[in-house]
Amino acid sequence: MSIAATARAFPDFERSAVQGEARPFNTGRTLIDARTAETWRSLTHRAVRRLGPNDLGYADPAGLAELRANICDYLRVARAVRCEPDQIVITAGTQQAIDIAIRVLLAPGDEVWVEDPGYPLTHAQLLLAQVQPRAIPVDVEGLMVDVGRRTASRARAVFVTPSHQFPIGVAMSMARRLELLAWARQSGAFIVEDDYTSEFRYSGPALASLQGLDHSEQVIYVGTLNKALFPGLRIGYAVVPRALLPAFIGARYLIDRQPATLQQVVVSEFMQQGHFAAHIRRMRLLYREQRDALAETLTRRAAGRLDVELPDQGMHLVAYLRDGSSDLAIEAAARRAGIVVRAISRFYRAARPRPGLMLGFSGFPRQLIVPAAARLAALVANRGRN
Amino acid sequence: MSIAATARAFPDFERSAVQGEARPFNTGRTLIDARTAETWRSLTHRAVRRLGPNDLGYADPAGLAELRANICDYLRVARAVRCEPDQIVITAGTQQAIDIAIRVLLAPGDEVWVEDPGYPLTHAQLLLAQVQPRAIPVDVEGLMVDVGRRTASRARAVFVTPSHQFPIGVAMSMARRLELLAWARQSGAFIVEDDYTSEFRYSGPALASLQGLDHSEQVIYVGTLNKALFPGLRIGYAVVPRALLPAFIGARYLIDRQPATLQQVVVSEFMQQGHFAAHIRRMRLLYREQRDALAETLTRRAAGRLDVELPDQGMHLVAYLRDGSSDLAIEAAARRAGIVVRAISRFYRAARPRPGLMLGFSGFPRQLIVPAAARLAALVANRGRN
Repeated sequence: MSIAATARAFPDFERSAVQGEARPFNTGRTLIDARTAETWRSLTHRAVRRLGPNDLGYADPAGLAELRANICDYLRVARAVRCEPDQIVITAGTQQAIDIAIRVLLAPGDEVWVEDPGYPLTHAQLLLAQVQPRAIPVDVEGLMVDVGRRTASRARAVFVTPSHQFPIGVAMSMARRLELLAWARQSGAFIVEDDYTSEFRYSGPALASLQGLDHSEQVIYVGTLNKALFPGLRIGYAVVPRALLPAFIGARYLIDRQPATLQQVVVSEFMQQGHFAAHIRRMRLLYREQRDALAETLTRRAAGRLDVELPDQGMHLVAYLRDGSSDLAIEAAARRAGIVVRAISRFYRAARPRPGLMLGFSGFPRQLIVPAAARLAALVANRGRN
Repeated sequence: MSIAATARAFPDFERSAVQGEARPFNTGRTLIDARTAETWRSLTHRAVRRLGPNDLGYADPAGLAELRANICDYLRVARAVRCEPDQIVITAGTQQAIDIAIRVLLAPGDEVWVEDPGYPLTHAQLLLAQVQPRAIPVDVEGLMVDVGRRTASRARAVFVTPSHQFPIGVAMSMARRLELLAWARQSGAFIVEDDYTSEFRYSGPALASLQGLDHSEQVIYVGTLNKALFPGLRIGYAVVPRALLPAFIGARYLIDRQPATLQQVVVSEFMQQGHFAAHIRRMRLLYREQRDALAETLTRRAAGRLDVELPDQGMHLVAYLRDGSSDLAIEAAARRAGIVVRAISRFYRAARPRPGLMLGFSGFPRQLIVPAAARLAALVANRGRN
């Protein structure tokens, strides 16, 4: 990626989303209730009292042993990930985990598959590494593996969000998962499974990870605590096949030596003492209420002009524009009205977009959601009339 | 860099240094006295009480505004860096700052100059990015710019440690600095100035930064608080020329979104309230005593077989082997005796090494330094007799 292109990587759109972080319906917003806040404080107090110079020096680049063990236990149970603690590498988030994976697995000029529509930052990260992303369409079953095989057969890796496709929210079907794993096995390609926001499952059983189905050690599973807890935490992880582990840790060491000590200790205790599981359970209920408040208000007030999809998990929903009007125009109009929405068409590459709005619901109280959703719905309804 | 080569990036040598972190004479060890520990605790307590969900969400990838302003003030006064707060980008350390610089400035196949001897992790980082490092020898005035011009004239950047050359500790002369800046201006190359451990100056006036002499905006200055405070902190920074700033922030965003919130708040308050300057003043006295204890014991007990160079700044010294015996053999023998030393010859590429031992002195109490130094000296003296 050229200097000019890199300069566009943190676009005005993202900039204003970061600045207007507290405004509905920004994505990735999390809630910290009084109980978690109090526990977090007391664990931090204890850790900062206990840690001396011997604890605060250079340490294992892969992360704190206790934290890796706690994350491993969690992933085995909650996500059916097949792992041992030494396969967990602590990162600052999925973003850094994916950057490391790119640098370990790929060389400039290599081809990879990405989802279309898909997560724009993964796409930009690939360009930064001079890798060639090939956009493979997504249908109701997830990534269309047969299209990938046909149109980009030389791909060395694939980047997927199987449990909750970004941004449209479909879950990859079992048939598609097995097809993807079979392709990886035959072609020798690696699968990078981005399992963001898998913690927040609202209905139906939790889907098992793709990694748990893999018997040929070709999946790097990445996840984050920044969405389960709060984005300013900067703790994520990768589960790395044993054969890639030394290279992954080596690259992590060269890129960014090691994770910070204090947060690792606090998060590890938070998980160890059962607070993490309890936090997830409480937030799941709250986020579900927030999801429902948003969906109901939009549906009721949009005069039939929005198809709201109720997601089974995650922190955002998609409201499709029924009359096919421009989601970019609605995005701009909403912004002028103080409401943050993302036009789904921004996330498409070659596939033909179905216009819609991506709306974060997590972390906004009902009294903020309902009036903002009503304003947004009115805006869509009025536009429809013009 | 291939997967196999990346796997070697965190070598056994580094691994054992991390594991044996508390053993003399490991490098990069820092001291936190009771006063700093107490202040740090109370600032952390206050910050963790004060920060709510609105503070802990996604934030500016360049870092917290207050912290950037405090670092800017410090660098102007202490290092004569020419900067405004918006030119400061917070990173996890010099390692990450250099990784970002490499990815913004360079493309695979580009040539750059590195110091010979020089910092092995910078060299490995360049290989990871498929950049071609050209080893340029260092003499008593620092990097030999004329050799660079003659042997690698197409270089797009240079990576230097001008205030305390790693590992031999010479300061780049003013003539050499001006020569390097003139070359950068003529060739359009960028200079990455790694100003690690500049905080600990023991005698003579603090040298001004190379960046402060640059009038053509071609120097990226990188520094860290991980050595001034403690390595597990993970806060460093880059001072970026205005023209490169959007690309640098864009790359930072793609690689690792943003720094963690809590540490930024704590460090910023620590600087703002004058604790940082006071900590540096106190540690400087302690580290100087530790330097002197190490140098005196080695000189007195090595039976004339070591030339100990007393550095004006930094956290390590070099003891040269007078009879030219193998520093690698001494390194191995010392390890068997429970003492961590680094053979200087490890840091050489093409230049002919002057055998010596790199010894970290900072952070070890005198009662640990003196007996360990005596054992090491005896080991060198006995070897000389065989």
